[in-house]
Amino acid sequence: MAGTDRTQASLSGGPAIVLVRAQLGENIGVAARAMLNFGLTDLRLVRPKAGWPNVKALNAASGADEVLARVRIFDRVEEAVADLRYLFAATARDRDMVKPVVSAHGAAQFMRATDGAGSDCGVLFGPERTGLTNEEVALAERVIMIPLNPAFASLNLAQAVILVAYEWFTVADDAPHERLRQKGTRAATKDELFNFFGHLETALDGAGFFPTETMRPHMVLNLRNLFARAELTEQEVQTLHGVIERLSRARPPEADSDTG
Amino acid sequence: MAGTDRTQASLSGGPAIVLVRAQLGENIGVAARAMLNFGLTDLRLVRPKAGWPNVKALNAASGADEVLARVRIFDRVEEAVADLRYLFAATARDRDMVKPVVSAHGAAQFMRATDGAGSDCGVLFGPERTGLTNEEVALAERVIMIPLNPAFASLNLAQAVILVAYEWFTVADDAPHERLRQKGTRAATKDELFNFFGHLETALDGAGFFPTETMRPHMVLNLRNLFARAELTEQEVQTLHGVIERLSRARPPEADSDTG
Repeated sequence: MAGTDRTQASLSGGPAIVLVRAQLGENIGVAARAMLNFGLTDLRLVRPKAGWPNVKALNAASGADEVLARVRIFDRVEEAVADLRYLFAATARDRDMVKPVVSAHGAAQFMRATDGAGSDCGVLFGPERTGLTNEEVALAERVIMIPLNPAFASLNLAQAVILVAYEWFTVADDAPHERLRQKGTRAATKDELFNFFGHLETALDGAGFFPTETMRPHMVLNLRNLFARAELTEQEVQTLHGVIERLSRARPPEADSDTG
Repeated sequence: MAGTDRTQASLSGGPAIVLVRAQLGENIGVAARAMLNFGLTDLRLVRPKAGWPNVKALNAASGADEVLARVRIFDRVEEAVADLRYLFAATARDRDMVKPVVSAHGAAQFMRATDGAGSDCGVLFGPERTGLTNEEVALAERVIMIPLNPAFASLNLAQAVILVAYEWFTVADDAPHERLRQKGTRAATKDELFNFFGHLETALDGAGFFPTETMRPHMVLNLRNLFARAELTEQEVQTLHGVIERLSRARPPEADSDTG
């Protein structure tokens, strides 16, 4: 997966990811890697059960050293989030609480809307098996819930982190979602395209492609449509000219049945 | 993370995830789990380097047995995608190709806009280290690129899969942004498309289209790319067969100089 250019703002560290009593070093490492993939660098651990420093975490981070080097360890969630202004709790179970529930996308929009850098925001993630306690969830103003297949709703900790990080990163993207990639080439002009149409249709006439004159207009339209849809480059139009040229060049003169 | 209710349509199997020459069993397992989290069940493996069946994959799947039980193994990408109509390639490197690039979100919107169940769509993912070959990317109409931190843009295979699956699941409520117009016709299957490629290339070989054997692969790739991009209907593929047939039919037998 390739990176596209991104504003510096999204790489300033972003919201804090707070892993509470994480059980597996691997999950911490994969979460760190996922964070850095999407420009997040502020990782905080509350009493990691996996122990810290943790070799499995280092290995699983696959080079996200920048994140692991800055990790801060805390004894209590309250300390870990003390400097933040907006706190979200990622939780799996329904809680008997009255609290706004947002999607990861909604959370990202909210976090972008504060100071733009997200540095005053944080997201709490609980231990793999049990999740956050009610007391910990109560520290957050909002709950993040990710819609899941109800028949298989156990999301890995690091995967939950990557979805939050991904939404944070992509929600800033105002670029169009689809564009034609053209390396060292340019889209064909309509003139070039129409010349190709002419070439193709003349060749097909010569080859007796159209069964009847009545059917010709409809068939021509279909051919033009399909090639128009391809949004051809200049080079590709040249190639197609060559294809027509070559395929039809070898054709014998109109009738040489007199050799029989 | 809790599941919310979702329409049955989103749990019908969804788009196919095609892992090409995956190297690590763990990644296959985590990908399967991620798929099922978001209602995808159609996993296809092309020559898994990890070997199959694979104990590490089973362990890493954490109960996503439904997906692993249905895995299908193929020898070539062409076979793995033969029944699909819309194919995406997830790729990390910039390719010297002219092909629309979409985000995971854009891809999900597109896949939802076909038959709603996504069962005629698929996404190719390459091996962990090397990614897809250019020839494999050329089989797809669109490239999926996930915006990443340019300073740390190596995304784990299973994480790439989960982002595609997550977007597929969560985009369900969005209005479709793109719909291929198909009046009384249907998109060609990949099998039909590949047959056309074969026909075209054989005809071009016969006509001496390729100046040298060295230039052939690149020229073939360009031709395949432009036709893949056109998202041909079945009817259009038939028409193009007719075009090739007609243009090359009239060519005289290789050598009939013996009549002299």
